[in-house]
Amino acid sequence: MITGTTRLYAVIGDPIAQVRAPELLNALFAAEGVDAVLVPVHVGSADLAVVLPGLQRIENLRGILVTVPHKVSALSFADTVNPAAEAAGSANALRKENDGTWTADNFDGVGFVRGLRAVGHEIAQAHVAVIGAGGAGAAIAAAALAEGAAHVGVTDVDSARAADLVARLDVRWPGRVAVGADLAVADLAVNATPLGLRAGDPLPFDPRRLPARAVVADIIMRPKRTPLLRVAEEAGYRTHYGHHMLDTQIDLYREFFALPGRP
Amino acid sequence: MITGTTRLYAVIGDPIAQVRAPELLNALFAAEGVDAVLVPVHVGSADLAVVLPGLQRIENLRGILVTVPHKVSALSFADTVNPAAEAAGSANALRKENDGTWTADNFDGVGFVRGLRAVGHEIAQAHVAVIGAGGAGAAIAAAALAEGAAHVGVTDVDSARAADLVARLDVRWPGRVAVGADLAVADLAVNATPLGLRAGDPLPFDPRRLPARAVVADIIMRPKRTPLLRVAEEAGYRTHYGHHMLDTQIDLYREFFALPGRP
Repeated sequence: MITGTTRLYAVIGDPIAQVRAPELLNALFAAEGVDAVLVPVHVGSADLAVVLPGLQRIENLRGILVTVPHKVSALSFADTVNPAAEAAGSANALRKENDGTWTADNFDGVGFVRGLRAVGHEIAQAHVAVIGAGGAGAAIAAAALAEGAAHVGVTDVDSARAADLVARLDVRWPGRVAVGADLAVADLAVNATPLGLRAGDPLPFDPRRLPARAVVADIIMRPKRTPLLRVAEEAGYRTHYGHHMLDTQIDLYREFFALPGRP
Repeated sequence: MITGTTRLYAVIGDPIAQVRAPELLNALFAAEGVDAVLVPVHVGSADLAVVLPGLQRIENLRGILVTVPHKVSALSFADTVNPAAEAAGSANALRKENDGTWTADNFDGVGFVRGLRAVGHEIAQAHVAVIGAGGAGAAIAAAALAEGAAHVGVTDVDSARAADLVARLDVRWPGRVAVGADLAVADLAVNATPLGLRAGDPLPFDPRRLPARAVVADIIMRPKRTPLLRVAEEAGYRTHYGHHMLDTQIDLYREFFALPGRP
């Protein structure tokens, strides 16, 4: 029941119809008796600089989730940028602190890592190959390093983008990250490119070059079983699907916004 | 159930905890199967010029209800100002049109008039005395004229404010409105001042100067039975309470935002 005392959360994106956060968080609020509501806010890139500061000045609005295409732009509306968002160069959540300042964080990487752990794949001490150095690849590479990966190799068709990311990560985790992925020694190889979204896309990499112990992961949600994962499964590798990254999302929101409830 | 496709309405004010619009409109949305939600938006006067344009640029936001202290300021954020809002010099609702422009309207006056009519008091051909030329008095005077009152007399402790209002109304309804209230011939006398909100306030006017047929109305909601109404009732007059003005509010919202449902 929404009343005059209800606190607000917003999820901003363009498009917005596909977001699942309202169902997830409003169910949590109802179950925990929290007087709050999360609403979808459809805003185009051209209007972000008007809408986002407007939301931030609403006194009873406590937090903002950020989805495509605003994750990079959202960083510039935060007073404090947490390490994961800094490393990823993008944010998927903004939180209002008690002093009125705003903190940005990025859950994509930690969500991916927790999804792996939930099904028994450990990332500590692992050699990780991240294919694709965009927002998702950057977040995953940073989270893998933060979780104790022995080495993270990053590739991208845009080699300058890969080099930029590695330079950024090397400041925080020196000597454990490099451009280039040596698939022959990787324990985990992650597709963080869009290849596989469309029928006829080439494979982002050939999983059959990995050692037999390796896990092959994709962040693409639809199709659930991408050509990469199909080829890997047919060759006997363990695979990890894109949707696993979302399974822990609600817990990440809960922790970031200090909401009650159990994981 | 709020999802990514849900349309938004907001009610803005400072304070905001007291607003009833979320309960009223969200119950309507649920009953009529409308995929929309109304949320309370707490915004101080200093932030209005940032928050209101931000709300207006949200693509899935369709309308804004406005309460104290933003009713006068809200007018300047509209592209089109409907006659009732123009006459009152304030708005309590902004609607996004299909072309993206914004229309302002003011329901305070028509809500008051409908509340009167709902309990059998007709305003057509009546001589009306409006005591207080602020936002509420202005809206009520305009609505009384629009409903066919024979004459509306307006007074205010700030005589320039009363004169300004009369000059504005006289443009639209020439010859039927004047400064000064001749209680001896009034069919209806309305307190549109804050007098009666606090214990010890003087009466806004002496109702015993009215003819026996007159109705004495107050727009103050708490206390429900103001000293003015008590004195009038003790002297045998019919009275009309502040809460009646709110009884028709849901229908006015419904009509303005073209929502389904019955009055």
